[in-house]
Amino acid sequence: MSLVEPGMRRDLSALFEPDGVAIVGASDDPVKWGNWLARGALRGERRRPVYLVNRRGGEVMGRPAFRSLAELPAPPALAVLAVPPAALEQAVDDAILAGVRALVVITAGEADGDAGGARDRALAARAREAGVVLLGPNCLGVFDARAELELVSNDLPHGPIGLISQSGNLALEIGMIAADAGLGFSRFVSVGNQADVQVAELIGNLADHPATELIAIYVEDFRDGRAFAAAAEAATRAGKPVVLMAIEHTEATARAVASHTGALASDGAAIDAACRAAGIERVRAPQELIDVADGLLRAGPMRGRRVGVLADGGGHAGIATSLLQRAGLQLPRLGDALAAELRAGLAPAAAVSNPIDLAGAGEQDIRTFDRTARALLRSGEVDAVLMTGYFGGYSEYAETLGRGEASAAEALADASHVSGRPLVVQTMHPQTPASGTLRRRGVPVYRSIERAVDVCARLAARGERGPDGVPPLPSAAAPVRVERPIEEGGYALARSLLAAAGVAFADARTVGGPDDAVEAARAVGYPVVLKALGLLHKSDAGGVALGLRDDAAVRAAVADMEERLAPPAFSVEWMAPVSDGVELLIGARWDARFGPIALVGLGGLFTEILHDIAVALAPMNEVGALALLGSLRSAPLLAGARGRPPLDAPAAAAALAALSRVAAEHPEVAAIEVNPLLVLRAGALGLDARLELADRDEAGGAAS
Amino acid sequence: MSLVEPGMRRDLSALFEPDGVAIVGASDDPVKWGNWLARGALRGERRRPVYLVNRRGGEVMGRPAFRSLAELPAPPALAVLAVPPAALEQAVDDAILAGVRALVVITAGEADGDAGGARDRALAARAREAGVVLLGPNCLGVFDARAELELVSNDLPHGPIGLISQSGNLALEIGMIAADAGLGFSRFVSVGNQADVQVAELIGNLADHPATELIAIYVEDFRDGRAFAAAAEAATRAGKPVVLMAIEHTEATARAVASHTGALASDGAAIDAACRAAGIERVRAPQELIDVADGLLRAGPMRGRRVGVLADGGGHAGIATSLLQRAGLQLPRLGDALAAELRAGLAPAAAVSNPIDLAGAGEQDIRTFDRTARALLRSGEVDAVLMTGYFGGYSEYAETLGRGEASAAEALADASHVSGRPLVVQTMHPQTPASGTLRRRGVPVYRSIERAVDVCARLAARGERGPDGVPPLPSAAAPVRVERPIEEGGYALARSLLAAAGVAFADARTVGGPDDAVEAARAVGYPVVLKALGLLHKSDAGGVALGLRDDAAVRAAVADMEERLAPPAFSVEWMAPVSDGVELLIGARWDARFGPIALVGLGGLFTEILHDIAVALAPMNEVGALALLGSLRSAPLLAGARGRPPLDAPAAAAALAALSRVAAEHPEVAAIEVNPLLVLRAGALGLDARLELADRDEAGGAAS
Repeated sequence: MSLVEPGMRRDLSALFEPDGVAIVGASDDPVKWGNWLARGALRGERRRPVYLVNRRGGEVMGRPAFRSLAELPAPPALAVLAVPPAALEQAVDDAILAGVRALVVITAGEADGDAGGARDRALAARAREAGVVLLGPNCLGVFDARAELELVSNDLPHGPIGLISQSGNLALEIGMIAADAGLGFSRFVSVGNQADVQVAELIGNLADHPATELIAIYVEDFRDGRAFAAAAEAATRAGKPVVLMAIEHTEATARAVASHTGALASDGAAIDAACRAAGIERVRAPQELIDVADGLLRAGPMRGRRVGVLADGGGHAGIATSLLQRAGLQLPRLGDALAAELRAGLAPAAAVSNPIDLAGAGEQDIRTFDRTARALLRSGEVDAVLMTGYFGGYSEYAETLGRGEASAAEALADASHVSGRPLVVQTMHPQTPASGTLRRRGVPVYRSIERAVDVCARLAARGERGPDGVPPLPSAAAPVRVERPIEEGGYALARSLLAAAGVAFADARTVGGPDDAVEAARAVGYPVVLKALGLLHKSDAGGVALGLRDDAAVRAAVADMEERLAPPAFSVEWMAPVSDGVELLIGARWDARFGPIALVGLGGLFTEILHDIAVALAPMNEVGALALLGSLRSAPLLAGARGRPPLDAPAAAAALAALSRVAAEHPEVAAIEVNPLLVLRAGALGLDARLELADRDEAGGAAS
Repeated sequence: MSLVEPGMRRDLSALFEPDGVAIVGASDDPVKWGNWLARGALRGERRRPVYLVNRRGGEVMGRPAFRSLAELPAPPALAVLAVPPAALEQAVDDAILAGVRALVVITAGEADGDAGGARDRALAARAREAGVVLLGPNCLGVFDARAELELVSNDLPHGPIGLISQSGNLALEIGMIAADAGLGFSRFVSVGNQADVQVAELIGNLADHPATELIAIYVEDFRDGRAFAAAAEAATRAGKPVVLMAIEHTEATARAVASHTGALASDGAAIDAACRAAGIERVRAPQELIDVADGLLRAGPMRGRRVGVLADGGGHAGIATSLLQRAGLQLPRLGDALAAELRAGLAPAAAVSNPIDLAGAGEQDIRTFDRTARALLRSGEVDAVLMTGYFGGYSEYAETLGRGEASAAEALADASHVSGRPLVVQTMHPQTPASGTLRRRGVPVYRSIERAVDVCARLAARGERGPDGVPPLPSAAAPVRVERPIEEGGYALARSLLAAAGVAFADARTVGGPDDAVEAARAVGYPVVLKALGLLHKSDAGGVALGLRDDAAVRAAVADMEERLAPPAFSVEWMAPVSDGVELLIGARWDARFGPIALVGLGGLFTEILHDIAVALAPMNEVGALALLGSLRSAPLLAGARGRPPLDAPAAAAALAALSRVAAEHPEVAAIEVNPLLVLRAGALGLDARLELADRDEAGGAAS
């Protein structure tokens, strides 16, 4: 098990701050990578020598080209390889021989078609043996703003974001959106196939990089998922938020990414669990990525969920209020003293009880904005202010307001900093000088109110909880290794494994026929449940009979199931008082990249219909399990909804924690679950269970 | 009851296409409405005479001002009143006397403070009596692109959208966003307080207006909600989609809109019900409004949910695929023949099984885009194509591609039109010539992939169902009018009203004490339920005892409740087999603007926790009720989830339809519900019910 080994932390300075660069495969053809990279490299020529290498020699970009790395006067720290697939292995050997310390391999396909990653593994091994860092293959470049290293196909904006991406076009798009927000990149790394340098190692590098204030990631394959999560958690704790855009596995996304980088996409639950553990902000698209990064870079976490809305029109006030409430934020009615203070500076038509509508006061006196915001922010009655509407456009609207608007922008930013509470701005004029002033002074400014509200919700959530932490996996071999054959569905085995770990189950006896069944039923006590064993989905197949009240009912049920299903055996079980409690599902699945993932949700009939599921990296302890339970939408059911007594949530959490430990100790178990787990006033009782072994060649199959 | 009266349809030509305009209150002061409106009016001077009126006379904007409307050489059809509140009534009288046919009243506040709308009612009555149309008060202008009528404070872009707005600033923002998308307004009307002209009448006007292709609405108060819905439904059926941004009532939004236009915001459920009835697209913010309008204007409904993704990079392919699947759309794997056809034109690195990743083919031959899109669109294997990535930027990227990209854009649009299937484009280059070509030829182009995907989901939903239709309300008085006093919670009354309408309830007897209770229990048959009557929330208060199995249990429960709750009476009821069925909630509420709204959701404990609720305008018939039931997330529970037998959904629908009729016949009932309604294999049985009367002064209180 290498899952919990911390990500490698090598010296990557040759990659980001090389003392010289060679472009192997440099070209004059303007639609070739060898051309774009050479152009990019030459932009940094005042910082370091740039060598253009082309096996045909002659001139490239108006300067003599070297035929090979061996011809160079001095070995540069970094070589970029943009050569045909057939020439790649030789080029790597040449570079190592020439003495380079880092390799950026642009070359994508393999000389002899898709060889299942064998070439990548061989290249990585060769590089590591020589102590050389290798980025790629199938990499689209590397960029360091301060070092003026621009080994990329396009201009990228400079700024505080360290970007790791498995797609060049998405990096480009993210860069364009970032520039609009006055943001840009400190470093950018395209990771390609991650043969050697993986995303976890790069996160560590960016966490240590002073010019990087936030780490943004687009990734299709997490490789060592636990190392990824651990690196992200460390960065988060060090004050560098991590924002992640990831592709999760479905049949269709697998078609998308497999052809792209040969990636193995992780299950959405595994990615969510990693984000929970590491405090990562998950996003779904480039614009959202930058909008969230903007908020995290420019505003700190909120101390609570109370927002004051400051609008210069009733429509904007109403829209913002609606969206904030839908996002779970609160708009407290302001206290009388504060309302009176605000009222004093405003016209009678203004609304002052939250939302605040300046109702035209801005045109009369632009400083109304910062006076009102300051009063709100320092009042202690809200945890953030969302300003929405027209601000930033007043200078255009009336020349006389120009200077005032700039001062108001400065004063608004100051009011936020002094109060220690975020100010988030939405305006229909996001690209005017006043909006620029707000941004430069640390206020996030959005054109879209949806995004301003989403950022407020994330700031509030960050104030409420940080990362859970990444649990280590048991390093020793499992005490008992589960081997095939097990019966279909694995009910008996799941029960015995989980019971040994401390999960309570309803009293049950395994029997072969009607007489044994009746005897077992009497021992368990009527009414009983009869289950046909050896079926994957007992309920769906009609293999469960509930509420059998006497011997005759048991015999009839056995006869019926024998005829229909011919099961190898039956289980006779105590009929638990289901209507006295709530049914949960607890389970765990083994993700190829992240290892064991625990999940809990509303169980029984509701599991698949309502999708109220929470996930976390396994194993987890009882405290973590209880917090996870509490994050369910249906958590109020456990607390005793509608006059019912509270149920034993700690017992449910203990069962979940025990199950998560079993999962972590048994990599050979692909999935294990108890559904339902009946949570009662005292205790929690497993009523059914299921277990699935991994395919033999996948057993223990986490990232290697 | 005036709720179902169709919206008034008067001749509004004097408002939009007047033969002359007078601006009363015209001013040289550049921060006054009287100045902005005068400037706007003068921009149309080549089309009609413009008269500036200012009671001080002299010059305004370099031309002589009239002192009053009486001085004008000829009465213009339209007068705009931007006068102080104290001068408003006189100005209206003057205008009527001068012979104008339409009035736009900008003036907002009342001379003597807030008089609760009395002034507005008086103004509207005076105008109607004189046969004059009155827009406002508190109106921010009116605009007609073809008529060159620009009575607004800012420039607005011209285009196919008719906008009705209750906020001037939001209209401005919507206009700015529309312009970026190459869209604009055919007409814009600010409705203000809707004293005379209401939103429903304006929808009817825009539906008849040839230059208007889509109607967009921002509204805080729907006034006659049924007339609104009926007008929107008629427009939708006439091929003019309606997009609605509305503020729904919460405590905080009430604070926002009450101070703005004195509006009475409707419940979110009522608005959703109206949208369902009228086929309205509901949006939450300005950017979303234009993005949706863009999609509806430029693309028709999809015939199914299958989308083909065409990307020029693996990252974009993956992101789009993920988002489409989250939005409930399908990405079918393409058939072998189609995949082979696509493969023939692409490099080996390309993915061709959906998503399609051109993998660099665009740089080599830009026409790969339209060839691939055409093959996809005509194949019949997808219902729409979503193109995502870099398209539109190739001309900048390599000059040689410039002409090709324009041709490709034309061919892409043609392929969509010929196939009759939508093409939706997301690109990081939305403002380039090629993107402009796509737009002009009817292809919606988005910068944000989230919005492109949302539009696909809406196009698919529109293909699946149109408007439900707006049900008429019973015009006769209710057969039996419910009068106070009723007991708290109204259980007995709700039962009797609903039972008379055909809703089945569990057998029940009302009793006073322990002996009667025992007798009733024996008659009903053990086990029984005992309920304490006269409590608003019986369960929460501990006023329900379930599963009483014998006389002693009944006596004990009666004694316990008498001691704790001292109820006026008890109900002894048959204990229905709850675990054999599914509990629903069915109910109806009376919205002040939309009248009775029916709702159905998962009942019992789950109602408030899971918010799985569907709503519709009441009354509804059994077919509509069954469709509404089917729209619940939890609908599969009724169909027989996990091997359970299917339940009697038609019986549940019949109960819902009956309840909706009762609600529609009893405007004096503010709310009525059955919760739970136990749906069994045969039949559906009410187990509890509740009724609330409207406050006396609100009874029958729908829009007047």
